[in-house]
Amino acid sequence: MTRNLTVVDLNSDMGKGFGAWRMGDDEAMLEIVSSANLACGFHAGDPVIMTDMAALAKQKGVGIGAHPSFMDLWGFGRRQIRGDSMADIEKMVAYQIGALQATATLGGHKVRHVKPHGAIANMAAVDRELALALARAVKAVDRELIYVALPNTEIERAAETTGLRLAREVFADRTYDDTGNLTPRKAPGAVIHDAEVAASRVIRMIEEGGVRSVSGKLVPVAIDTICVHGDNPAAVAMARTVRERLQAAGIAIRPMAETLA
Amino acid sequence: MTRNLTVVDLNSDMGKGFGAWRMGDDEAMLEIVSSANLACGFHAGDPVIMTDMAALAKQKGVGIGAHPSFMDLWGFGRRQIRGDSMADIEKMVAYQIGALQATATLGGHKVRHVKPHGAIANMAAVDRELALALARAVKAVDRELIYVALPNTEIERAAETTGLRLAREVFADRTYDDTGNLTPRKAPGAVIHDAEVAASRVIRMIEEGGVRSVSGKLVPVAIDTICVHGDNPAAVAMARTVRERLQAAGIAIRPMAETLA
Amino acid sequence: MTRNLTVVDLNSDMGKGFGAWRMGDDEAMLEIVSSANLACGFHAGDPVIMTDMAALAKQKGVGIGAHPSFMDLWGFGRRQIRGDSMADIEKMVAYQIGALQATATLGGHKVRHVKPHGAIANMAAVDRELALALARAVKAVDRELIYVALPNTEIERAAETTGLRLAREVFADRTYDDTGNLTPRKAPGAVIHDAEVAASRVIRMIEEGGVRSVSGKLVPVAIDTICVHGDNPAAVAMARTVRERLQAAGIAIRPMAETLA
Amino acid sequence: MTRNLTVVDLNSDMGKGFGAWRMGDDEAMLEIVSSANLACGFHAGDPVIMTDMAALAKQKGVGIGAHPSFMDLWGFGRRQIRGDSMADIEKMVAYQIGALQATATLGGHKVRHVKPHGAIANMAAVDRELALALARAVKAVDRELIYVALPNTEIERAAETTGLRLAREVFADRTYDDTGNLTPRKAPGAVIHDAEVAASRVIRMIEEGGVRSVSGKLVPVAIDTICVHGDNPAAVAMARTVRERLQAAGIAIRPMAETLA
Repeated sequence: MTRNLTVVDLNSDMGKGFGAWRMGDDEAMLEIVSSANLACGFHAGDPVIMTDMAALAKQKGVGIGAHPSFMDLWGFGRRQIRGDSMADIEKMVAYQIGALQATATLGGHKVRHVKPHGAIANMAAVDRELALALARAVKAVDRELIYVALPNTEIERAAETTGLRLAREVFADRTYDDTGNLTPRKAPGAVIHDAEVAASRVIRMIEEGGVRSVSGKLVPVAIDTICVHGDNPAAVAMARTVRERLQAAGIAIRPMAETLA
Repeated sequence: MTRNLTVVDLNSDMGKGFGAWRMGDDEAMLEIVSSANLACGFHAGDPVIMTDMAALAKQKGVGIGAHPSFMDLWGFGRRQIRGDSMADIEKMVAYQIGALQATATLGGHKVRHVKPHGAIANMAAVDRELALALARAVKAVDRELIYVALPNTEIERAAETTGLRLAREVFADRTYDDTGNLTPRKAPGAVIHDAEVAASRVIRMIEEGGVRSVSGKLVPVAIDTICVHGDNPAAVAMARTVRERLQAAGIAIRPMAETLA
Repeated sequence: MTRNLTVVDLNSDMGKGFGAWRMGDDEAMLEIVSSANLACGFHAGDPVIMTDMAALAKQKGVGIGAHPSFMDLWGFGRRQIRGDSMADIEKMVAYQIGALQATATLGGHKVRHVKPHGAIANMAAVDRELALALARAVKAVDRELIYVALPNTEIERAAETTGLRLAREVFADRTYDDTGNLTPRKAPGAVIHDAEVAASRVIRMIEEGGVRSVSGKLVPVAIDTICVHGDNPAAVAMARTVRERLQAAGIAIRPMAETLA
Repeated sequence: MTRNLTVVDLNSDMGKGFGAWRMGDDEAMLEIVSSANLACGFHAGDPVIMTDMAALAKQKGVGIGAHPSFMDLWGFGRRQIRGDSMADIEKMVAYQIGALQATATLGGHKVRHVKPHGAIANMAAVDRELALALARAVKAVDRELIYVALPNTEIERAAETTGLRLAREVFADRTYDDTGNLTPRKAPGAVIHDAEVAASRVIRMIEEGGVRSVSGKLVPVAIDTICVHGDNPAAVAMARTVRERLQAAGIAIRPMAETLA
C-alpha cells in the first residue's frame, strides 16, 4: 500500500446520542476531524442522529464509518458480554453497518470505514476468533470498507487475513510500550492530558513512521489515522490543537478513504 | 406495467422472533410463500433471525423484503406512536431497511421489497404525509425496491407520487367493500376462516382482475401479491390450501420481484 | 385537608439519566427543591441513578416520588402511545412505582408521591378513563402515596374519586387562563423566562390562594407544590430565585409529605 | 430451622413472556407447582404478564418469587455481562424485586421469595462478591424474603452470611457428584429425561435427606424446594409426574413460604 506520509486522517467517535440524550460536542468535532465513527444504535446512536450526523459530515467533508458494538445501550458497549456464538456476533455487526449505510444514504453520504467500539473491540484485540468474526461481517457487507485497527492486535491480523483494506490507528493521548502496544490506561502517565504534548507526539510519530515507547524506543508503525476525543471541552481543545499543529507542520488532514490507496 | 395474470406472489410476515422468542411457523411458510416480509428489529426481528431467514429464503427461492415498524418491541408495532416528525420517521424506516439489507447480504440474499407493518401501516393508509415519508425512505435507500401497498390507500398513492415500483396486495382471508377497501376486521364475516373459501376467493380475484365486494360488486384491482399468515396451524393450513388451489388452477406462484416488470 | 399556606413544596423532575447519559443538573436542584420526581426506567431512569438519587435526596432532606411514563426510552415519554388497555397501563404504572420503592429502600429513602410524566400525563389530564387507571395503580401499590395533579384536570378528579391524597401543583414558569388551566405552551408569553417575574408570580399565587389568569382574574386554587425545572443553567437559576424569593417572603419550603395532612 | 421432611415445595420459572411473546406453559404449570419464579422484565417478563401471573398464582394457591437477571432481554439473561460494579448489580436486583412486589400487589398477591436467574446465578454460584451483592439487595428490599439457593454454592453461603431465610433447592432432572454439586450439563447422563426416573430420584432424595451422587454416595442436603421446568410438553409431563409421585408417596407439596419456619 503506497502512502503519502505528509497526509493523515483524524478520527473521533461521534453521534453518541439516543433520543433526547447527547454526549460529546459533535458540532465542534466536525470542524476538527476528517473521519467520524458513528454509533449504530447498539451502544448509542439512533436513526435520527445517524442520519443527521451523516448529512452534517457530508457537508463538512468529513468521512463516516460504522462504530459497531455489543447490544448494550445501558452499558454504552463498555461491558463484556459473553455467550454469543461467533456466527451471531457476525450478524450483529452486519446489522449495525447496514443500518448506518441506509441512514447515511438518506443523509446523502456513504459509509467508508468500520471501527469496532468498546468492549467488543477490546476483546477482539486479543481474541483471534472474535476478531475474525468482526472482519468477516465487514467483508460480507461491503468488501471496499476500510477497517480501522490498532497495530499489533488480532484485529489487525484478522483484517489482513480477510483481505480487508486496513487503516492503522494511533492515539493522540496515549503512550506506548516497546512492543508498540498501548500502556495500560491505569499506569501512571499512560494518558496524556497536555494538548501541546499530545500534538508534538503525534507529529513526531508521523515524521518518524512509528511510535516512541515510554523507554524511548522507536517502534515502526504505519500510521493512517489518529484517534482524538470530543467528550468534554478539554478533549475538544486537545483535538483542535492536534489539528492545528499538524497543519502547521505541513501535514494535511484528509478522510482515510482518500489517503488509503 | 405489464403483468401476466396467471402469475402471482404469495407473501407472509416472517422472522417474528427476538432472542429466544419465536412466533409463527417460518419453516412451514417458507415452503408455501414466494415472498417473506422480514421484521427488522423494531417490533420483532434481530440480527440473528434476520440473517438466518434471509439465508433460508434464498435456499428456498423465496424473495425477501423489509417489514419496517414503529420502534415498539413490547407492543409488536401494533400501537400508534404519535409525536415523531415525518423526517424522523423517514430515518427510522431507512435504518430498518438498511439493517435488513446488510444481514440479508451476509445471508447471501438481497432485499427486493418493503411492506410497512402494523400501526404505522394502518396510519399511513389514511395519512398522506406519513405515507409520503415512508415512500421517501424506501426510495432514498434503494429506488429499485418494490413497495407493497393495499390498493386505494395513501400508501399506494404515495408510492405512485414517489415513482416507486408498486406491488398491489390483496388478503386471502378478508372481505372487501364496494370501494375496494377491506371491511372492518370486527364486522361479522370480515375475516374468512375456511381455507377452501379463502382459496376460491383468491382464484376468482385473480381471474376477474379485481375483488368481489360483500355486496357482490366487482371492483377492478391490479393484484400482484396475496397476503397469507403463518401465526398458528390453522393459518398455515389456509396458506397451504391457497397455494395448492392456485397451482391447481394453473396460476404460478413467483416472488414479486420476478412478476413485476 | 388543613394546610398552612405559608408552607409550600417545590418539586422538580430529576434522575433523568440512563446508563452513561445524564440530563439536567440534579446536584444543583437537590439544594433547591423539597421534592424530586424520579424517572423509573420507562422514559429515563435506571436502577443505578434511581438508587443514587434516592440516597442523595435522603441526605439533603428532599422527598422523592415516582415519575411514571409510557415505556418509551427513545421518545423520553413525550410521544403518545395508543393501543394499550387501561388495565395494562395500570400494570405499567404499578411496575414503575414498585421499582422505585425498592431502589429507594436500598438507598435509604421512601417514596411518598407519584407524578405522571410527559405524554401519559397530558393524555390523562383530559381522559377520564386513563386518569382513573393511573389513580388505581397508585392506590393499589400504596394507598398512602400522595398524587400530584394539576388542578381542574381529570387527574385531579380521578384522585378525588379514588380517595388518594392529593397535591395540587402550579408551574412557576407558565401562565393560566380564566378557567385555571395552563395557556397553551405555544401561545405568546405562555412560558415565563424571567426568574424574578416567575418568583413574584409564585409568591402572589400563594398569598392569594389562586392563580391570576392572563386577563387578570383570580382563579382560586389550592397550591400544594410548585413545579420548577433543572434542565439547563437558566432553569436552575430560575428555580433558585423562586426558592430564595419564597424564603425571603417568609414562605417555608417543605416536602409535600410534610405539608399535607 | 425445623422442617417437616414430608412436605416439600415444587418451583418453576414462569412468566417468561414479553409483549406478544410467550415461552412455556404457565397455565399447566400453575396446576403442578407450589412456587413460581417470575421474570421481572430484565431477561423476560413485563408489567402485564407479571401482574397477571401474580393474580393467577394467588388464585391457584401458588407462591410467587422474583427471578432477577442481568439486563439482557435479547440473550434471555443467559449471557455473562462483565463490567458492572457490585454496588450497581445490587441496585439492578432491587429494581427487579420492587417491580414484582408492586405488580404482585396489584394482582392481589405477595412476593415471598427470590431466585436469581441464568448467567447471574451461575456466576454468583462461584463468585463470593457477586453472591453477597445479590444477597444484600434481597435483604435491603425485604428481609423476610426467602432466598432460593443451590446447596454448596457461594449463593448459599452469602445468604447465610447475610442472615437471609434460605430455601435449599434440588433439581428433579439433574444428577449430582460426590460433593453434592450438579454434574456438568454436558456430561453423559447429566440431564434426566425419563419422568418416572426423575420422580423416583426426587422421592428418594427427600426420604434420605440428601442427594445420591452418580457414584452412589449419599450427600446429606437439606431439601426445601425442587426445581421443575415447563418449557415444553415433555418438561410439563415430567413436572406433573414428579408431583403425582410425591403425593402418592405421602409427601405434601406446599409453597416454600409455608414450609419454611
